Amino acid sequence: MGGPYSVRSVLSLSVLEIFSKKWQSRCRHLKPLLAMVLLFLHVEYNSSMPTHLTHVDEHGRARMVDVGSKAETERLAIARGEVKMKPETLALLRAGALKKGDPLVVAQIAGIAAAKRTADLIPLCHPLPLTYVDVTLELSDKIPGVLITASVKTVGQTGVEMEALTAVSVAALTVYDMVKAAEKTMRIQNIRLVEKRGGQSGDVVNE
Amino acid sequence: MGGPYSVRSVLSLSVLEIFSKKWQSRCRHLKPLLAMVLLFLHVEYNSSMPTHLTHVDEHGRARMVDVGSKAETERLAIARGEVKMKPETLALLRAGALKKGDPLVVAQIAGIAAAKRTADLIPLCHPLPLTYVDVTLELSDKIPGVLITASVKTVGQTGVEMEALTAVSVAALTVYDMVKAAEKTMRIQNIRLVEKRGGQSGDVVNE
Amino acid sequence: MGGPYSVRSVLSLSVLEIFSKKWQSRCRHLKPLLAMVLLFLHVEYNSSMPTHLTHVDEHGRARMVDVGSKAETERLAIARGEVKMKPETLALLRAGALKKGDPLVVAQIAGIAAAKRTADLIPLCHPLPLTYVDVTLELSDKIPGVLITASVKTVGQTGVEMEALTAVSVAALTVYDMVKAAEKTMRIQNIRLVEKRGGQSGDVVNE
Amino acid sequence: MGGPYSVRSVLSLSVLEIFSKKWQSRCRHLKPLLAMVLLFLHVEYNSSMPTHLTHVDEHGRARMVDVGSKAETERLAIARGEVKMKPETLALLRAGALKKGDPLVVAQIAGIAAAKRTADLIPLCHPLPLTYVDVTLELSDKIPGVLITASVKTVGQTGVEMEALTAVSVAALTVYDMVKAAEKTMRIQNIRLVEKRGGQSGDVVNE
Amino acid sequence: MGGPYSVRSVLSLSVLEIFSKKWQSRCRHLKPLLAMVLLFLHVEYNSSMPTHLTHVDEHGRARMVDVGSKAETERLAIARGEVKMKPETLALLRAGALKKGDPLVVAQIAGIAAAKRTADLIPLCHPLPLTYVDVTLELSDKIPGVLITASVKTVGQTGVEMEALTAVSVAALTVYDMVKAAEKTMRIQNIRLVEKRGGQSGDVVNE
Amino acid sequence: MGGPYSVRSVLSLSVLEIFSKKWQSRCRHLKPLLAMVLLFLHVEYNSSMPTHLTHVDEHGRARMVDVGSKAETERLAIARGEVKMKPETLALLRAGALKKGDPLVVAQIAGIAAAKRTADLIPLCHPLPLTYVDVTLELSDKIPGVLITASVKTVGQTGVEMEALTAVSVAALTVYDMVKAAEKTMRIQNIRLVEKRGGQSGDVVNE
Repeated sequence: MGGPYSVRSVLSLSVLEIFSKKWQSRCRHLKPLLAMVLLFLHVEYNSSMPTHLTHVDEHGRARMVDVGSKAETERLAIARGEVKMKPETLALLRAGALKKGDPLVVAQIAGIAAAKRTADLIPLCHPLPLTYVDVTLELSDKIPGVLITASVKTVGQTGVEMEALTAVSVAALTVYDMVKAAEKTMRIQNIRLVEKRGGQSGDVVNE
Repeated sequence: MGGPYSVRSVLSLSVLEIFSKKWQSRCRHLKPLLAMVLLFLHVEYNSSMPTHLTHVDEHGRARMVDVGSKAETERLAIARGEVKMKPETLALLRAGALKKGDPLVVAQIAGIAAAKRTADLIPLCHPLPLTYVDVTLELSDKIPGVLITASVKTVGQTGVEMEALTAVSVAALTVYDMVKAAEKTMRIQNIRLVEKRGGQSGDVVNE
Repeated sequence: MGGPYSVRSVLSLSVLEIFSKKWQSRCRHLKPLLAMVLLFLHVEYNSSMPTHLTHVDEHGRARMVDVGSKAETERLAIARGEVKMKPETLALLRAGALKKGDPLVVAQIAGIAAAKRTADLIPLCHPLPLTYVDVTLELSDKIPGVLITASVKTVGQTGVEMEALTAVSVAALTVYDMVKAAEKTMRIQNIRLVEKRGGQSGDVVNE
Repeated sequence: MGGPYSVRSVLSLSVLEIFSKKWQSRCRHLKPLLAMVLLFLHVEYNSSMPTHLTHVDEHGRARMVDVGSKAETERLAIARGEVKMKPETLALLRAGALKKGDPLVVAQIAGIAAAKRTADLIPLCHPLPLTYVDVTLELSDKIPGVLITASVKTVGQTGVEMEALTAVSVAALTVYDMVKAAEKTMRIQNIRLVEKRGGQSGDVVNE
Repeated sequence: MGGPYSVRSVLSLSVLEIFSKKWQSRCRHLKPLLAMVLLFLHVEYNSSMPTHLTHVDEHGRARMVDVGSKAETERLAIARGEVKMKPETLALLRAGALKKGDPLVVAQIAGIAAAKRTADLIPLCHPLPLTYVDVTLELSDKIPGVLITASVKTVGQTGVEMEALTAVSVAALTVYDMVKAAEKTMRIQNIRLVEKRGGQSGDVVNE
Repeated sequence: MGGPYSVRSVLSLSVLEIFSKKWQSRCRHLKPLLAMVLLFLHVEYNSSMPTHLTHVDEHGRARMVDVGSKAETERLAIARGEVKMKPETLALLRAGALKKGDPLVVAQIAGIAAAKRTADLIPLCHPLPLTYVDVTLELSDKIPGVLITASVKTVGQTGVEMEALTAVSVAALTVYDMVKAAEKTMRIQNIRLVEKRGGQSGDVVNE
């Protein structure tokens, strides 16, 4: 995915950087000139890249994106993340988990419940009637720790990417909460979008 | 912190691993013997390490820890985390942020609000009347991305570690939400406890 | 509804019981044989009965049912329940209620509000945009106590049975709360589905 | 507990009934006379019984009780309730539950979370920082169904009776939700206070 | 808008007043006569005016309106309101706001979040999946204070008037909260509907 | 209260205005001079007035005030507000209200519930365990409309001003919701603090 970005990145970065703080103190007088040169190159090479944040209007003010005119389509998002811990903490969790699986079920339920509260937690997120939420947790010696995967579906006007990421985050926090007496150096890491289907921006498959 | 664990870790891990899935398929017949040998070594070397999860009772059932008899003390927790993105996405955020700072303020507010809802999100967490919550966001070229720090205080019978981690997580999700149209490969990473003061288990300073 | 179940019940029960705790301690050696015999009879007589819980997958893990492919139809559910109390407590409530009807209105409002929060309370419940909620409370000398009825409607992909039952439960808890200083032996009882219309599993009329 | 109430009940009931609807249509002209006679008897025999609802003021208007002047004491409440189902439904639940215990853990977590949201569900309930919540579920052939017990503790100015009852109710609704595809005739029943300790009105032990 | 109401108002008021408390104590015997005369006039002049509250049934009991049979149309509502303060308090806010705009962004976010929680706050309000929420705040020397405008859209069976008004109210409360240490005499005022589009009752433009 | 502010207002306003947008376009070169002159006068006349917003730190960033070191004292706040409507709308409400008082009870309950959710609605508000909330509504021909009064108490480290104002606001929105089919021109107005007791800044009595 990196390849085609190599030139474009440098350019788009440069154009924007010119208006940034770092530049202001250094080479002020060159700014207009540089901006024009780079903007030209930028426009040449880069037409599909968004030139602004959708959640920020032309005055830099935060706003909720209007999705009223988008079509209602079936949408799916899968996100993943990890809670990294020491091997002996994982062993402790495994010992507890093996008995009846409780700590992982608690985290699973917390993740599902959180997905349904996404619009309540993230200010500019749209409320959506989810049709499916699934959260799975696996103990992994490779991390070492817990691998969390969330799948969310809806039939609606906007995607469920944030719902899947929120489910993973809160499931991870719940794992942390249940194990925290045993270790104070755990890390919640690598929370990312794995797959996204439906919607006008096309499908995304990262893994 | 690693030093004194080097031997202990291996041992405690081994004792527990014997009862784990991986072992069951391999060397079943050696299990009782090995367990006894390692348990002996384990007990010798390791007395302070928790031998169970506080949120799981003796039958492996999840439970909320009873904090009623703990003293009310002033407690502080600081947590940190990051949203990693491409340099050009960071540039886009910086351009938007420079105008009026909005995207970062939205994330800051979302983080503060989430800290107050921690017990609502994490099933076995105690509800606490927080006396202070602060969330700061910094754009960082080193990550590249956004560095989020949350500080939470209370006067109560249990700590505010989870509140600080929840504030960081939700602030990170909010940053992700506002920038997600520009990049589908961002990662929320490195969410960890930085400092913890007050409470019977003593102060913790990880960084 | 009882008739056709008479034989089937015994059989399906037996098949399942064989794998249950009670059986394990008694007649272990007969288990495989019995299981085969009963399973045969079970399969013969019972094809329509659910052989698993819809909220539990094949590995025994809890999950939210995927309703994305279900048709959007108009759905109605009516549930009922009671708060049983001593005749003199009912008299006290009646005296208070007669003045302006307040205690019952408070419970009615709490029930309506709870119906709208069902998916927030019950982990595997789908969030639904309800189109109608009504809760009525009647003082009854026959119980003696309060009879609560809730009717809920939606146009959606899944039913509103849980919403109606939740409205009744929370209205009952609210009645209990307002009267509890007068009696410590009240009971919330007989919360059940009365009627259910719309949806692929057909209409249900229990009363 | 019934004995000493026998006379008192009739009287207090009668005094109140005189002002009720039923009487208004029948013997209007006798009302003042009867009221005086019965009120006299009532006052003689009954001094300890509450003569009004604490959540209703002198004008019949609902209100939250002021607990500001009450002492902060340790308080405990235990409540219990049942989900009654057909034996074959219980068998199905038992089969699912035996694998990993999930359906019951989901209900347990829902009950704990609901206890923390009691003041959000029941309008005149005080918000309380709970120090302990435990919910247990047992499969019972005697009901047949599921027996749910909730224990809640706080150190505060008011009791946690409603929190324990709310935990039981929502755990029961969650069991119902997970099993409802298998049976439409389940009943949530017998939700009651079992024990209550701490607070100025003294300890209560019902079972 | 006043004109055509001049006669009608007096009449409709009178008819209703006859059944009110004030009248009961004065001219009881004239009531039936007056009612008939005024009702006749009322019916002549006034056919479109609602003769009852939609949220109250024929027995005076509160209820949620059934919107299940209404068509799903695009709906918009714009509401406005003000926080009035002393000129020097406004100056203080302006000084703070100029730096980075924070206090106003906090209020903006609180307003957007509140719009999404309207059905949770207002008992008989229908839950709606909003497609757009925008809240803007302007400092105004004319008030003097802050002018708040909220625009809300949905595609649904009922309007978003309450969502827009709730967004304005909570944004106003948030402004008040952030400035309250400087002045104790601020007023939240003039919260009203400005515009409403979509729905069977036709468009409304008040300003 | 206006008197002693007359000179001070002009001055403090002026000092701040100099740094504001309006001035930037006009008299740029005079700015430093003017600022010094006015700042001098300002400092002379005005020492008790807060020179910053407590919810904004020295960098203009929003923050929650740290109340951990404040003493726990008993605190009371009383707020008031109005829903203004046409006389005929009030008559309609009065007619409905007379039957059983429902619309006003619904608004009362919504106000009480909202007070308990204040910290969930207003981002920088501290969560507080309220000990008492009361909301009363009166029909008033003088407004004409509904007069709402809320009284809130706590024993805590910070006041309950926002809780009382939130209760009034949400009760007002609920009245509006129940009457809105009859009139589209109602106004919620005059929401203000009436009285505040307890806390280090001393008692406030505005009316």
